Amino acid sequence: MCVMVAGSAQLAAAQGMTTDPQAERKADLVTAYKILVNENILDSFGHVSVRSARDPNIFLMPRAMPPSLVSQDDILELRVSDSQPLEPKGRRVNGERYIHGEIYKARPDVMSVIHSHSQSVIPLGLTSIKLRPVVAQAGFLPPETPTFEIRDARKEGDRGMQVTDSARGAALARSLSSHPAALMRGHGNVVVGSSIKQAVVYAAYVDINARMQTQALLLSRDIVTMSEPELFKPEEFDINRPWEHLKQKIPDDAAKTKVDRAQFGLDQTQAKQ
Amino acid sequence: MCVMVAGSAQLAAAQGMTTDPQAERKADLVTAYKILVNENILDSFGHVSVRSARDPNIFLMPRAMPPSLVSQDDILELRVSDSQPLEPKGRRVNGERYIHGEIYKARPDVMSVIHSHSQSVIPLGLTSIKLRPVVAQAGFLPPETPTFEIRDARKEGDRGMQVTDSARGAALARSLSSHPAALMRGHGNVVVGSSIKQAVVYAAYVDINARMQTQALLLSRDIVTMSEPELFKPEEFDINRPWEHLKQKIPDDAAKTKVDRAQFGLDQTQAKQ
Amino acid sequence: MCVMVAGSAQLAAAQGMTTDPQAERKADLVTAYKILVNENILDSFGHVSVRSARDPNIFLMPRAMPPSLVSQDDILELRVSDSQPLEPKGRRVNGERYIHGEIYKARPDVMSVIHSHSQSVIPLGLTSIKLRPVVAQAGFLPPETPTFEIRDARKEGDRGMQVTDSARGAALARSLSSHPAALMRGHGNVVVGSSIKQAVVYAAYVDINARMQTQALLLSRDIVTMSEPELFKPEEFDINRPWEHLKQKIPDDAAKTKVDRAQFGLDQTQAKQ
Amino acid sequence: MCVMVAGSAQLAAAQGMTTDPQAERKADLVTAYKILVNENILDSFGHVSVRSARDPNIFLMPRAMPPSLVSQDDILELRVSDSQPLEPKGRRVNGERYIHGEIYKARPDVMSVIHSHSQSVIPLGLTSIKLRPVVAQAGFLPPETPTFEIRDARKEGDRGMQVTDSARGAALARSLSSHPAALMRGHGNVVVGSSIKQAVVYAAYVDINARMQTQALLLSRDIVTMSEPELFKPEEFDINRPWEHLKQKIPDDAAKTKVDRAQFGLDQTQAKQ
Repeated sequence: MCVMVAGSAQLAAAQGMTTDPQAERKADLVTAYKILVNENILDSFGHVSVRSARDPNIFLMPRAMPPSLVSQDDILELRVSDSQPLEPKGRRVNGERYIHGEIYKARPDVMSVIHSHSQSVIPLGLTSIKLRPVVAQAGFLPPETPTFEIRDARKEGDRGMQVTDSARGAALARSLSSHPAALMRGHGNVVVGSSIKQAVVYAAYVDINARMQTQALLLSRDIVTMSEPELFKPEEFDINRPWEHLKQKIPDDAAKTKVDRAQFGLDQTQAKQ
Repeated sequence: MCVMVAGSAQLAAAQGMTTDPQAERKADLVTAYKILVNENILDSFGHVSVRSARDPNIFLMPRAMPPSLVSQDDILELRVSDSQPLEPKGRRVNGERYIHGEIYKARPDVMSVIHSHSQSVIPLGLTSIKLRPVVAQAGFLPPETPTFEIRDARKEGDRGMQVTDSARGAALARSLSSHPAALMRGHGNVVVGSSIKQAVVYAAYVDINARMQTQALLLSRDIVTMSEPELFKPEEFDINRPWEHLKQKIPDDAAKTKVDRAQFGLDQTQAKQ
Repeated sequence: MCVMVAGSAQLAAAQGMTTDPQAERKADLVTAYKILVNENILDSFGHVSVRSARDPNIFLMPRAMPPSLVSQDDILELRVSDSQPLEPKGRRVNGERYIHGEIYKARPDVMSVIHSHSQSVIPLGLTSIKLRPVVAQAGFLPPETPTFEIRDARKEGDRGMQVTDSARGAALARSLSSHPAALMRGHGNVVVGSSIKQAVVYAAYVDINARMQTQALLLSRDIVTMSEPELFKPEEFDINRPWEHLKQKIPDDAAKTKVDRAQFGLDQTQAKQ
Repeated sequence: MCVMVAGSAQLAAAQGMTTDPQAERKADLVTAYKILVNENILDSFGHVSVRSARDPNIFLMPRAMPPSLVSQDDILELRVSDSQPLEPKGRRVNGERYIHGEIYKARPDVMSVIHSHSQSVIPLGLTSIKLRPVVAQAGFLPPETPTFEIRDARKEGDRGMQVTDSARGAALARSLSSHPAALMRGHGNVVVGSSIKQAVVYAAYVDINARMQTQALLLSRDIVTMSEPELFKPEEFDINRPWEHLKQKIPDDAAKTKVDRAQFGLDQTQAKQ
């Protein structure tokens, strides 16, 4: 017999606790910030958002602030339609919130968006070389991940590298297309997922894959990239394992102590009895 | 006079304590996980196993879980014959346990198997360049370490990079042959040893050697690799020294406090008196 | 409504506290040392200075000592005119204080000077390749950052790599020109700012930019550098966000606990209401 | 007035304390191990020694053990003449103690010897490229640092990379010649000094210089190395500053608290009064 306990909502339910999906998303959002800061994926800038559990036309995102400081009280609600805050309450919002709003608008399947200045992906993005899947756990990537060039989206006479209006956000969303990630030239990347956990785990493996591809290319221009039969579907990848591992690596994190050890592993790989 | 105290079993014996070889293997297995996580050799995945001290047809391996969380209670017994758990007790097993089972089947000399996604070896494995011994402490390696290509083992129409059945495990074991290590293209490596300590120390030096070879090859295609008279036999390498050093590096590890200082050094290098 | 609270002086004022601009500069100077040591920008040598709040012809700089040890009591006052200490009180001064004095003399706009041996910029400086802006947050850099060659400033028969007199300092200041940074061949760099915070944040992004440019150039000689419309003016860059983030990363820093969360974000990027 | 306080012996004297030069050397030796382990210069192997303060024909060196575990009680006395221990007391000695003995024999000016497996120097040593001074603080290096090739010292039919007898040690000492350092192909390096502090600081800058030279060479084969007028004499380099900085970086080191701040800086660079 195998008890399926997949997320903290289910775990709470299994333990007879009531759970609030919105509260869970806020808690996961703060954990995502801690993980991504600890992994050097988020630096002084960069942001993570999640679609509201109550209304798919709303997304949750912290106000303008350094990722290392984010707490639940900093989370604002923004509209998908125009990326504007519902009630700023005098709090400043991120200038690049249009990245998130426009991706949620274009991609109903996306529940979480990460924009980072990850130094693992920037070098590749400065060249004409495309990110390609080379490590087994990055098999969620397409054969070529697009690199967004802001110059293609910038209007005549406009300035800046940042995605600071809906038009630029929409251009980035078109570049992302149906993929889980897009590199942004000279800037970083966006990674999306069907949950915060998936987006965080995908962002971690985009980083690892970019470093491995970069290092291998320095050794040889003739490297083996993953073939179509080596790519996988989301349900074939146990994201709980890297999510919990990345949480363990956070220094002094209270969230570490209680772990449901039954959550790891995939049913299709288990022993026949 | 020189007191020989080589392992914790002997140490316990020397101190008049009774010792249980199986308990010692389980304790070393947990320590191996801590060391290899701390050295960034094991990441969110990867696993270590040891042959049972009671029955060579059984091996011990934790259930499916992140390496950073492994404790003695998570260790399961699996059969060498088919890599299936004796009593899963509802606990999920690792999908890649066939790596371990098939290597134990093919190599009676092997007592411990490590499979890691080490980022030090992956770049080399993506190219046609073979890992060669270049640093003095990696003299346990053969002149060329094989790189396993899963495409050679995958049946027509099959998918995936992982070693998820006995046929794939057997193909990997054939690639490993009689060597202490094999790289796995786009995936990582396997390292084996005649004990957990030896496998862990070998894994650490495979990593260092791969980084040094990679960096040197970026400087020059004409590097000096170790010649046959520079390779060594297992008994010529004091594995206790790196094993204890790697333990010292684990943050807040209780195992650090008591160290038998007489265990280090090799008899053949001592002073004539 | 949006409350503007830009610095610790304003914050103190808003909280009804009296504030001393000189005391604030000394406190920021010590924080700058902690941040730059933690970021591996300052090593055993290197120094940071700030112009006095009381007299623009005076600058504040610690005595000769390792950056990791600097406290407010170590700060001396030096003259811009000749880089000599007002009252050494028997304390030794830095041999390279002429870097600071001569830059303050040539650049009335500069309020803070950082000289570091940053290992991120040294490799580029050993070649004929110029540092160019490649990452969005380094848009404060000019299209080409100059590399200072001490051989051009050294008199016939003189020795040494260091800037140990006014003539060498003046030559470095001429090389820096009106720019925010100059590399120093085989030595490191200088970074200047209109405040300690700006200089520290600029130094951090000079480092990141140098690493990204270096890594990209190893992949391809044909990389995309930032165009003129992608560069920005100081007021377009929210330095509070990286300053606070870098402070958060200091281990066990008492300064972490109180953060004014309203200080982050730029007005021009906010929601229209 | 400027109080000269150069070392811990003088400091003790200045404070009216009696001091034992041998005890000071043992204390510095243990600190050297802590620093070099923390800087990743010493790994599981590698060793540091110092000439006895009582008899120049004796040197002090810990028994065979991992560098991270060394305490004063582990220090043995060995003869310079044959590298054998005076009284092993049943404790095993390092197989490569001949490195130390033969260098002390050939170099009366040398008071301390470090042998490390530093991963910063190994890549260069695997190629025909010589280590050359490129960073200002490495101006103690000659224009070319020799790389020792054990194959030139190994007798017909002999085996191994290690320096395990007097003949090999003498060959290494000849390769080192009058220089402060020699690389060892596939093995690491030796760094010597007129004191433990100097040897440790030199080892740290050999590491930094090797990394900077390596990284620059990947960018361009045409790099600027330091010219003769850019090299310096020992007395022109303030080793107290890096020694104390490196001590500060040791986690939880009791030695951090008391620092004589007057020890830093060189007299020739001070203000004329």
